Amino acid sequence: MERHHFETDLQGLKNRLLNMGALVEERVHGAIQALMERNIDSAESIARGDGEVNALQIEIDDRCLKLLALQQPMASDLRLITSAMKINADLERIGDQAVNIAENAIKMLAAPPLKPLIDLTRMAEIAERMTRDSLDAFVRRDPALAREVLGRDDEVDGLKDTVFRVLLTYMMADPGTIERALSLILISRNIERIADHATNIAEDVIFIAEAKDVRHHAEEAAGKP
Amino acid sequence: MERHHFETDLQGLKNRLLNMGALVEERVHGAIQALMERNIDSAESIARGDGEVNALQIEIDDRCLKLLALQQPMASDLRLITSAMKINADLERIGDQAVNIAENAIKMLAAPPLKPLIDLTRMAEIAERMTRDSLDAFVRRDPALAREVLGRDDEVDGLKDTVFRVLLTYMMADPGTIERALSLILISRNIERIADHATNIAEDVIFIAEAKDVRHHAEEAAGKP
Repeated sequence: MERHHFETDLQGLKNRLLNMGALVEERVHGAIQALMERNIDSAESIARGDGEVNALQIEIDDRCLKLLALQQPMASDLRLITSAMKINADLERIGDQAVNIAENAIKMLAAPPLKPLIDLTRMAEIAERMTRDSLDAFVRRDPALAREVLGRDDEVDGLKDTVFRVLLTYMMADPGTIERALSLILISRNIERIADHATNIAEDVIFIAEAKDVRHHAEEAAGKP
Repeated sequence: MERHHFETDLQGLKNRLLNMGALVEERVHGAIQALMERNIDSAESIARGDGEVNALQIEIDDRCLKLLALQQPMASDLRLITSAMKINADLERIGDQAVNIAENAIKMLAAPPLKPLIDLTRMAEIAERMTRDSLDAFVRRDPALAREVLGRDDEVDGLKDTVFRVLLTYMMADPGTIERALSLILISRNIERIADHATNIAEDVIFIAEAKDVRHHAEEAAGKP
Protein backbone atom coordinates (compact mmCIF):
# COMPACT_ATOMS: atom_id res chain seq x y z
CA MET A 1 0.00 0.00 0.00
CA GLU A 2 1.20 3.50 -0.74
CA ARG A 3 1.77 6.39 1.58
CA HIS A 4 -1.36 8.02 0.18
CA HIS A 5 -3.53 5.11 1.29
CA PHE A 6 -1.83 5.11 4.65
CA GLU A 7 -2.72 8.78 5.20
CA THR A 8 -6.33 8.08 4.20
CA ASP A 9 -6.52 5.14 6.60
CA LEU A 10 -4.95 7.19 9.37
CA GLN A 11 -7.51 9.95 8.82
CA GLY A 12 -10.26 7.32 8.94
CA LEU A 13 -8.89 6.06 12.26
CA LYS A 14 -8.81 9.57 13.70
CA ASN A 15 -12.39 10.20 12.58
CA ARG A 16 -13.60 7.03 14.24
CA LEU A 17 -11.83 7.98 17.48
CA LEU A 18 -13.56 11.37 17.30
CA ASN A 19 -16.91 9.59 16.79
CA MET A 20 -16.15 7.39 19.79
CA GLY A 21 -15.22 10.45 21.85
CA ALA A 22 -18.41 12.31 20.87
CA LEU A 23 -20.49 9.23 21.69
CA VAL A 24 -19.07 8.66 25.19
CA GLU A 25 -19.19 12.37 25.96
CA GLU A 26 -22.84 12.48 24.96
CA ARG A 27 -23.55 9.48 27.19
CA VAL A 28 -21.74 11.00 30.18
CA HIS A 29 -23.63 14.25 29.62
CA GLY A 30 -26.92 12.36 29.34
CA ALA A 31 -26.26 10.46 32.57
CA ILE A 32 -25.56 13.67 34.51
CA GLN A 33 -28.59 15.34 32.87
CA ALA A 34 -30.81 12.42 33.90
CA LEU A 35 -29.55 12.81 37.47
CA MET A 36 -30.18 16.56 37.52
CA GLU A 37 -33.61 16.36 35.88
CA ARG A 38 -34.53 13.30 37.93
CA ASN A 39 -35.41 11.42 34.75
CA ILE A 40 -35.36 7.69 35.54
CA ASP A 41 -36.33 6.60 32.01
CA SER A 42 -33.42 8.46 30.54
CA ALA A 43 -31.01 7.10 33.20
CA GLU A 44 -32.20 3.57 32.49
CA SER A 45 -31.73 3.99 28.77
CA ILE A 46 -28.11 5.10 29.34
CA ALA A 47 -27.45 2.30 31.85
CA ARG A 48 -28.52 -0.27 29.26
CA GLY A 49 -27.28 1.27 26.03
CA ASP A 50 -23.52 0.83 25.83
CA GLY A 51 -23.64 -1.58 22.89
CA GLU A 52 -22.67 1.08 20.37
CA VAL A 53 -19.59 2.14 22.38
CA ASN A 54 -18.45 -1.46 22.70
CA ALA A 55 -18.90 -2.18 19.00
CA LEU A 56 -16.95 0.97 18.11
CA GLN A 57 -14.11 -0.01 20.43
CA ILE A 58 -13.71 -3.36 18.71
CA GLU A 59 -13.87 -1.76 15.26
CA ILE A 60 -11.23 0.85 16.14
CA ASP A 61 -8.88 -1.74 17.64
CA ASP A 62 -9.27 -3.75 14.47
CA ARG A 63 -8.39 -0.73 12.31
CA CYS A 64 -5.25 -0.19 14.40
CA LEU A 65 -4.12 -3.82 14.10
CA LYS A 66 -4.67 -3.75 10.33
CA LEU A 67 -2.68 -0.52 9.97
CA LEU A 68 0.17 -2.02 12.01
CA ALA A 69 0.16 -5.27 10.03
CA LEU A 70 -0.19 -3.82 6.53
CA GLN A 71 1.86 -0.66 6.87
CA GLN A 72 4.54 -1.68 9.34
CA PRO A 73 4.89 1.99 10.32
CA MET A 74 8.01 3.39 11.96
CA ALA A 75 8.75 6.01 14.58
CA SER A 76 6.03 8.61 14.97
CA ASP A 77 3.35 6.69 13.01
CA LEU A 78 4.02 3.66 15.18
CA ARG A 79 3.60 5.74 18.33
CA LEU A 80 0.44 7.27 16.87
CA ILE A 81 -1.24 3.94 16.17
CA THR A 82 -0.26 2.20 19.43
CA SER A 83 -1.42 5.31 21.29
CA ALA A 84 -4.71 5.23 19.37
CA MET A 85 -5.26 1.73 20.81
CA LYS A 86 -4.70 3.05 24.33
CA ILE A 87 -6.90 6.10 23.74
CA ASN A 88 -9.61 3.79 22.41
CA ALA A 89 -9.47 1.79 25.67
CA ASP A 90 -9.66 4.98 27.75
CA LEU A 91 -12.69 6.20 25.78
CA GLU A 92 -14.46 2.89 26.27
CA ARG A 93 -13.86 3.14 30.02
CA ILE A 94 -15.25 6.68 30.01
CA GLY A 95 -18.33 5.08 28.44
CA ASP A 96 -18.39 2.58 31.35
CA GLN A 97 -18.48 5.51 33.76
CA ALA A 98 -21.57 6.90 32.00
CA VAL A 99 -23.23 3.55 32.79
CA ASN A 100 -22.03 3.70 36.41
CA ILE A 101 -23.30 7.27 36.84
CA ALA A 102 -26.69 6.30 35.38
CA GLU A 103 -26.91 3.25 37.70
CA ASN A 104 -26.04 5.33 40.76
CA ALA A 105 -28.57 7.95 39.61
CA ILE A 106 -31.34 5.34 39.34
CA LYS A 107 -30.67 4.30 42.96
CA MET A 108 -31.06 7.92 44.09
CA LEU A 109 -34.08 8.96 42.10
CA ALA A 110 -36.56 6.87 44.06
CA ALA A 111 -35.99 9.19 47.06
CA PRO A 112 -36.64 12.96 47.29
CA PRO A 113 -33.83 15.25 46.08
CA LEU A 114 -31.02 15.86 48.55
CA LYS A 115 -29.49 19.20 47.57
CA PRO A 116 -28.70 21.32 44.52
CA LEU A 117 -25.88 19.46 42.82
CA ILE A 118 -23.92 22.44 41.59
CA ASP A 119 -20.41 21.11 42.30
CA LEU A 120 -21.19 17.77 40.68
CA THR A 121 -22.45 19.49 37.52
CA ARG A 122 -19.30 21.62 37.45
CA MET A 123 -17.09 18.54 37.92
CA ALA A 124 -18.84 16.78 35.05
CA GLU A 125 -18.53 19.83 32.78
CA ILE A 126 -14.78 19.96 33.35
CA ALA A 127 -14.37 16.20 32.85
CA GLU A 128 -16.39 16.26 29.60
CA ARG A 129 -14.38 19.22 28.35
CA MET A 130 -11.13 17.45 29.26
CA THR A 131 -12.25 14.43 27.24
CA ARG A 132 -13.13 16.55 24.20
CA ASP A 133 -9.96 18.65 24.35
CA SER A 134 -7.66 15.66 24.86
CA LEU A 135 -9.10 14.08 21.70
CA ASP A 136 -8.86 17.35 19.77
CA ALA A 137 -5.25 17.56 20.90
CA PHE A 138 -4.72 14.03 19.55
CA VAL A 139 -6.25 14.74 16.15
CA ARG A 140 -4.47 18.08 15.75
CA ARG A 141 -1.22 16.83 17.31
CA ASP A 142 -1.40 19.74 19.73
CA PRO A 143 0.73 19.06 22.83
CA ALA A 144 0.02 22.56 24.21
CA LEU A 145 -3.70 21.78 24.38
CA ALA A 146 -2.87 18.40 25.92
CA ARG A 147 -0.86 20.16 28.64
CA GLU A 148 -3.84 22.41 29.35
CA VAL A 149 -5.94 19.29 29.89
CA LEU A 150 -3.38 17.92 32.38
CA GLY A 151 -3.62 21.18 34.33
CA ARG A 152 -7.38 20.83 34.83
CA ASP A 153 -7.20 17.53 36.72
CA ASP A 154 -6.42 19.32 40.00
CA GLU A 155 -9.62 21.35 39.73
CA VAL A 156 -11.64 18.13 39.41
CA ASP A 157 -9.87 16.68 42.44
CA GLY A 158 -10.57 19.84 44.44
CA LEU A 159 -14.29 19.71 43.58
CA LYS A 160 -14.37 16.01 44.47
CA ASP A 161 -13.02 16.84 47.94
CA THR A 162 -15.60 19.64 48.38
CA VAL A 163 -18.46 17.36 47.33
CA PHE A 164 -17.20 14.75 49.80
CA ARG A 165 -16.99 17.20 52.72
CA VAL A 166 -20.43 18.71 52.08
CA LEU A 167 -22.12 15.32 51.76
CA LEU A 168 -20.35 14.01 54.86
CA THR A 169 -21.84 16.93 56.83
CA TYR A 170 -25.32 16.03 55.53
CA MET A 171 -24.91 12.39 56.53
CA MET A 172 -23.68 13.24 60.02
CA ALA A 173 -26.54 15.69 60.59
CA ASP A 174 -29.31 13.42 59.29
CA PRO A 175 -28.89 9.65 58.85
CA GLY A 176 -31.95 9.75 56.56
CA THR A 177 -29.70 11.27 53.88
CA ILE A 178 -26.98 8.59 54.09
CA GLU A 179 -28.05 6.43 51.14
CA ARG A 180 -28.56 9.33 48.76
CA ALA A 181 -25.37 11.06 49.89
CA LEU A 182 -23.45 7.82 49.31
CA SER A 183 -24.77 7.56 45.76
CA LEU A 184 -23.67 11.15 45.10
CA ILE A 185 -20.20 10.46 46.52
CA LEU A 186 -19.89 7.44 44.22
CA ILE A 187 -21.03 9.55 41.26
CA SER A 188 -18.33 12.11 42.08
CA ARG A 189 -15.80 9.24 41.95
CA ASN A 190 -17.20 8.14 38.59
CA ILE A 191 -16.63 11.66 37.26
CA GLU A 192 -13.13 11.72 38.77
CA ARG A 193 -12.34 8.56 36.80
CA ILE A 194 -13.49 10.23 33.57
CA ALA A 195 -11.04 13.06 34.24
CA ASP A 196 -8.32 10.46 34.93
CA HIS A 197 -8.94 8.82 31.56
CA ALA A 198 -8.83 12.21 29.80
CA THR A 199 -5.52 12.82 31.57
CA ASN A 200 -4.20 9.50 30.25
CA ILE A 201 -5.23 10.51 26.72
CA ALA A 202 -3.52 13.91 27.06
CA GLU A 203 -0.32 12.18 28.22
CA ASP A 204 -0.44 9.91 25.18
CA VAL A 205 -0.80 12.97 22.92
CA ILE A 206 2.33 14.54 24.39
CA PHE A 207 4.14 11.23 23.98
CA ILE A 208 3.16 11.02 20.31
CA ALA A 209 4.04 14.61 19.54
CA GLU A 210 7.30 14.79 21.41
CA ALA A 211 8.32 11.15 21.90
CA LYS A 212 8.65 12.14 25.52
CA ASP A 213 6.99 10.21 28.27
CA VAL A 214 5.23 12.66 30.57
CA ARG A 215 3.56 10.00 32.61
CA HIS A 216 4.47 10.04 36.27
CA HIS A 217 5.93 13.52 35.99
CA ALA A 218 8.89 12.24 34.00
CA GLU A 219 9.41 15.87 32.94
CA GLU A 220 10.07 16.99 36.50
CA ALA A 221 12.22 13.96 37.21
CA ALA A 222 14.31 14.84 34.15
CA GLY A 223 14.95 18.28 35.66
CA LYS A 224 12.90 20.31 33.18
CA PRO A 225 12.51 23.88 34.50
CA MET B 1 17.22 -9.36 13.52
CA GLU B 2 16.61 -13.06 13.41
CA ARG B 3 13.70 -15.04 14.72
CA HIS B 4 15.94 -16.33 17.51
CA HIS B 5 16.56 -12.81 18.77
CA PHE B 6 12.90 -12.03 18.48
CA GLU B 7 11.99 -14.99 20.70
CA THR B 8 14.59 -13.92 23.25
CA ASP B 9 13.24 -10.36 23.25
CA LEU B 10 9.69 -11.62 23.58
CA GLN B 11 10.69 -13.75 26.54
CA GLY B 12 12.37 -10.70 28.08
CA LEU B 13 9.16 -8.73 27.63
CA LYS B 14 7.08 -11.45 29.27
CA ASN B 15 9.51 -11.61 32.20
CA ARG B 16 9.29 -7.86 32.75
CA LEU B 17 5.47 -8.03 32.70
CA LEU B 18 5.66 -10.80 35.30
CA ASN B 19 7.96 -8.61 37.41
CA MET B 20 5.50 -5.74 37.06
CA GLY B 21 2.62 -8.04 38.04
CA ALA B 22 4.47 -9.36 41.09
CA LEU B 23 5.35 -5.81 42.13
CA VAL B 24 1.80 -4.41 41.94
CA GLU B 25 0.36 -7.51 43.58
CA GLU B 26 2.84 -7.15 46.44
CA ARG B 27 1.85 -3.49 46.82
CA VAL B 28 -1.89 -4.24 46.83
CA HIS B 29 -1.28 -6.99 49.39
CA GLY B 30 0.83 -4.64 51.50
CA ALA B 31 -1.86 -1.93 51.42
CA ILE B 32 -4.57 -4.35 52.60
CA GLN B 33 -2.18 -5.77 55.22
CA ALA B 34 -1.45 -2.26 56.51
CA LEU B 35 -5.19 -1.67 56.82
CA MET B 36 -5.79 -4.95 58.68
CA GLU B 37 -2.82 -4.58 61.00
CA ARG B 38 -3.52 -0.87 61.47
CA ASN B 39 0.05 -0.06 60.48
CA ILE B 40 0.15 3.61 59.44
CA ASP B 41 3.90 3.60 58.65
CA SER B 42 3.48 0.76 56.24
CA ALA B 43 0.41 2.38 54.61
CA GLU B 44 2.34 5.63 54.19
CA SER B 45 5.28 3.87 52.62
CA ILE B 46 2.95 2.25 50.05
CA ALA B 47 1.10 5.52 49.40
CA ARG B 48 4.39 7.22 48.55
CA GLY B 49 6.31 4.43 46.85
CA ASP B 50 4.92 3.93 43.35
CA GLY B 51 8.07 5.16 41.59
CA GLU B 52 9.26 1.66 40.78
CA VAL B 53 5.91 0.69 39.17
CA ASN B 54 5.93 3.84 37.06
CA ALA B 55 9.50 3.33 35.89
CA LEU B 56 8.73 -0.29 34.95
CA GLN B 57 5.67 0.77 32.97
CA ILE B 58 7.74 3.16 30.86
CA GLU B 59 10.46 0.54 30.34
CA ILE B 60 7.96 -2.12 29.24
CA ASP B 61 6.19 0.24 26.84
CA ASP B 62 9.56 1.07 25.36
CA ARG B 63 10.39 -2.62 24.86
CA CYS B 64 7.07 -3.09 23.05
CA LEU B 65 7.64 -0.13 20.72
CA LYS B 66 11.16 -1.37 19.90
CA LEU B 67 9.88 -4.87 19.15
CA LEU B 68 7.17 -3.45 16.87
CA ALA B 69 9.62 -1.16 15.06
CA LEU B 70 12.49 -3.62 14.64
CA GLN B 71 10.58 -6.83 14.06
CA GLN B 72 7.47 -5.64 12.25
CA PRO B 73 5.67 -8.72 13.54
CA MET B 74 2.56 -10.11 11.91
CA ALA B 75 -0.62 -11.80 13.08
CA SER B 76 -0.34 -13.43 16.49
CA ASP B 77 2.97 -11.75 17.46
CA LEU B 78 1.46 -8.39 16.60
CA ARG B 79 -1.56 -9.12 18.79
CA LEU B 80 0.77 -10.31 21.54
CA ILE B 81 2.84 -7.14 21.61
CA THR B 82 -0.02 -4.65 21.33
CA SER B 83 -1.83 -6.60 24.07
CA ALA B 84 1.31 -6.45 26.21
CA MET B 85 1.07 -2.64 26.01
CA LYS B 86 -2.54 -2.77 27.21
CA ILE B 87 -1.72 -5.26 29.96
CA ASN B 88 1.13 -3.01 31.05
CA ALA B 89 -1.33 -0.09 31.40
CA ASP B 90 -3.75 -2.25 33.40
CA LEU B 91 -0.98 -3.36 35.75
CA GLU B 92 0.11 0.22 36.32
CA ARG B 93 -3.47 1.13 37.22
CA ILE B 94 -3.64 -1.79 39.64
CA GLY B 95 -0.56 -0.19 41.21
CA ASP B 96 -2.52 3.10 41.43
CA GLN B 97 -5.22 1.27 43.37
CA ALA B 98 -2.64 0.09 45.91
CA VAL B 99 -1.86 3.79 46.48
CA ASN B 100 -5.58 4.62 46.78
CA ILE B 101 -6.18 1.79 49.25
CA ALA B 102 -3.20 2.93 51.34
CA GLU B 103 -4.45 6.54 51.33
CA ASN B 104 -7.95 5.51 52.35
CA ALA B 105 -6.42 3.28 55.07
CA ILE B 106 -4.39 6.18 56.47
CA LYS B 107 -7.60 8.23 56.82
CA MET B 108 -9.22 5.39 58.79
CA LEU B 109 -6.38 4.42 61.07
CA ALA B 110 -6.55 7.55 63.22
CA ALA B 111 -9.93 6.32 64.57
CA PRO B 112 -10.68 3.09 66.52
CA PRO B 113 -11.37 -0.04 64.42
CA LEU B 114 -14.90 -0.37 63.07
CA LYS B 115 -15.44 -4.10 62.53
CA PRO B 116 -13.57 -7.24 61.50
CA LEU B 117 -12.93 -6.74 57.81
CA ILE B 118 -13.36 -10.31 56.67
CA ASP B 119 -15.25 -9.63 53.42
CA LEU B 120 -12.77 -6.95 52.39
CA THR B 121 -9.84 -9.34 52.95
CA ARG B 122 -11.62 -11.99 50.92
CA MET B 123 -12.34 -9.51 48.10
CA ALA B 124 -8.68 -8.49 48.01
CA GLU B 125 -7.51 -12.12 47.99
CA ILE B 126 -9.68 -12.87 44.98
CA ALA B 127 -8.60 -9.71 43.13
CA GLU B 128 -4.90 -10.44 43.77
CA ARG B 129 -5.34 -14.01 42.61
CA MET B 130 -7.18 -12.81 39.49
CA THR B 131 -4.26 -10.48 38.71
CA ARG B 132 -1.70 -13.27 39.12
CA ASP B 133 -3.69 -15.83 37.14
CA SER B 134 -4.48 -13.44 34.29
CA LEU B 135 -0.75 -12.77 33.90
CA ASP B 136 0.11 -16.47 34.13
CA ALA B 137 -2.50 -17.07 31.45
CA PHE B 138 -0.78 -14.43 29.31
CA VAL B 139 2.69 -15.91 29.70
CA ARG B 140 1.52 -19.49 29.14
CA ARG B 141 -1.00 -18.54 26.43
CA ASP B 142 -3.68 -20.31 28.42
CA PRO B 143 -7.16 -19.11 27.44
CA ALA B 144 -8.83 -21.67 29.74
CA LEU B 145 -7.16 -20.07 32.78
CA ALA B 146 -8.12 -16.63 31.43
CA ARG B 147 -11.77 -17.74 31.24
CA GLU B 148 -11.58 -18.90 34.88
CA VAL B 149 -10.42 -15.40 35.82
CA LEU B 150 -13.41 -13.87 34.01
CA GLY B 151 -15.73 -16.10 36.02
CA ARG B 152 -14.42 -14.80 39.35
CA ASP B 153 -15.42 -11.18 38.73
CA ASP B 154 -19.02 -11.85 39.83
CA GLU B 155 -17.81 -13.09 43.20
CA VAL B 156 -15.95 -9.83 43.74
CA ASP B 157 -19.05 -7.84 42.77
CA GLY B 158 -21.17 -9.89 45.18
CA LEU B 159 -18.75 -9.25 48.06
CA LYS B 160 -18.67 -5.55 47.18
CA ASP B 161 -22.49 -5.41 47.51
CA THR B 162 -22.34 -7.26 50.86
CA VAL B 163 -19.67 -4.89 52.19
CA PHE B 164 -21.82 -1.95 51.08
CA ARG B 165 -24.99 -3.23 52.77
CA VAL B 166 -23.25 -4.07 56.05
CA LEU B 167 -21.47 -0.72 56.25
CA LEU B 168 -24.67 1.15 55.36
CA THR B 169 -26.35 -0.51 58.35
CA TYR B 170 -23.50 0.63 60.59
CA MET B 171 -23.76 4.21 59.35
CA MET B 172 -27.52 4.36 59.82
CA ALA B 173 -27.30 2.94 63.34
CA ASP B 174 -24.45 5.17 64.50
CA PRO B 175 -23.43 8.37 62.69
CA GLY B 176 -20.13 8.19 64.59
CA THR B 177 -19.09 5.37 62.21
CA ILE B 178 -19.88 7.30 59.01
CA GLU B 179 -16.37 8.50 58.14
CA ARG B 180 -14.72 5.14 58.76
CA ALA B 181 -17.48 3.24 56.95
CA LEU B 182 -17.10 5.59 53.97
CA SER B 183 -13.38 4.89 53.79
CA LEU B 184 -14.07 1.16 53.82
CA ILE B 185 -16.67 1.51 51.07
CA LEU B 186 -14.15 3.42 48.95
CA ILE B 187 -11.52 0.72 49.61
CA SER B 188 -14.00 -1.94 48.45
CA ARG B 189 -14.37 0.08 45.21
CA ASN B 190 -10.58 0.25 44.86
CA ILE B 191 -10.45 -3.56 45.11
CA GLU B 192 -13.31 -3.86 42.61
CA ARG B 193 -11.25 -1.83 40.15
CA ILE B 194 -8.29 -4.20 40.58
CA ALA B 195 -10.58 -7.10 39.66
CA ASP B 196 -11.81 -5.09 36.65
CA HIS B 197 -8.23 -4.62 35.43
CA ALA B 198 -7.49 -8.34 35.88
CA THR B 199 -10.63 -9.03 33.83
CA ASN B 200 -9.31 -6.74 31.07
CA ILE B 201 -6.03 -8.65 31.07
CA ALA B 202 -7.83 -12.01 30.86
CA GLU B 203 -9.86 -10.73 27.89
CA ASP B 204 -6.65 -9.69 26.15
CA VAL B 205 -5.22 -13.17 26.71
CA ILE B 206 -8.21 -14.81 25.04
CA PHE B 207 -7.92 -12.31 22.18
CA ILE B 208 -4.24 -13.17 21.67
CA ALA B 209 -4.77 -16.91 21.86
CA GLU B 210 -7.87 -17.15 19.74
CA ALA B 211 -7.96 -13.88 17.78
CA LYS B 212 -11.47 -13.62 19.13
CA ASP B 213 -12.69 -10.53 20.89
CA VAL B 214 -14.46 -11.60 24.09
CA ARG B 215 -14.89 -8.08 25.35
CA HIS B 216 -18.48 -7.06 25.87
CA HIS B 217 -19.66 -10.66 25.70
CA ALA B 218 -18.94 -10.84 22.00
CA GLU B 219 -19.05 -14.63 22.43
CA GLU B 220 -22.68 -14.57 23.50
CA ALA B 221 -23.56 -12.05 20.81
CA ALA B 222 -22.02 -14.41 18.27
CA GLY B 223 -24.37 -17.15 19.47
CA LYS B 224 -21.78 -19.32 21.23
CA PRO B 225 -23.58 -21.90 23.40
